[in-house]
Amino acid sequence: MITGLDHIAIAVPDLEKAIQRFVEDFGLTFKGKEDVEDALTSTAFFPVDKPSIELIHPLRGQGPVQKYLEKKGGGMHHLCFRSDDIEADVERLKAKGYQFLTEAPTIGAHNCRVIFIHPKSCDGVLVELNQPQ
Amino acid sequence: MITGLDHIAIAVPDLEKAIQRFVEDFGLTFKGKEDVEDALTSTAFFPVDKPSIELIHPLRGQGPVQKYLEKKGGGMHHLCFRSDDIEADVERLKAKGYQFLTEAPTIGAHNCRVIFIHPKSCDGVLVELNQPQ
Repeated sequence: MITGLDHIAIAVPDLEKAIQRFVEDFGLTFKGKEDVEDALTSTAFFPVDKPSIELIHPLRGQGPVQKYLEKKGGGMHHLCFRSDDIEADVERLKAKGYQFLTEAPTIGAHNCRVIFIHPKSCDGVLVELNQPQ
Repeated sequence: MITGLDHIAIAVPDLEKAIQRFVEDFGLTFKGKEDVEDALTSTAFFPVDKPSIELIHPLRGQGPVQKYLEKKGGGMHHLCFRSDDIEADVERLKAKGYQFLTEAPTIGAHNCRVIFIHPKSCDGVLVELNQPQ
């Protein structure tokens, strides 16, 4: 039987740069690299602790997720990192050149304060930061 | 500071059908739904235990991930569920109508046996099953 989620995979054009990003910018622990001949890939792993899968669907057929579905039909949409000081993280990442979709955090699920990094700053991955209130 | 990965979000065209899939087909626990007015979304959450982020990059500029990067530049690529009996899970999911990319499992990272479900069977998400040997 299926016993749990094993990993979430992200395709990246520059593996070393991406490893540096996930360690230095997003604070994950790098566990190691492996070449997988059958898949013709080089891979790098970062264990993470107890996230959630979140399914998202447009409210009343409106909003950015509605547009996403109209264009793509469905799919993996974003990763979200938890922050304990979202202003400090936004400032730190802006100083490193990251672009954000809004100037300030808005309210997301579970009443968290949330802000999104533009996918073009992260190899095509939409990255959210959230902070519980 | 960023303290960890909070969630992975998947955009779905039919929220109830997708909840049923992640509970009945992939064995996750459904924790609840929430409408998020600021984001114009209905959301559904499923806690998961200790997966990894996996960065993937083409080996020697070859293979399906090379083609993915040429088309998209980078991005979220797949989710992987862990199985303790991959043949039984493939048989069970095939009986429910899921289509797989190969007839039989191949060898993936960490020497696991792996097989992929076609994204068209899962609202545009490429889903891998793996089983450690």
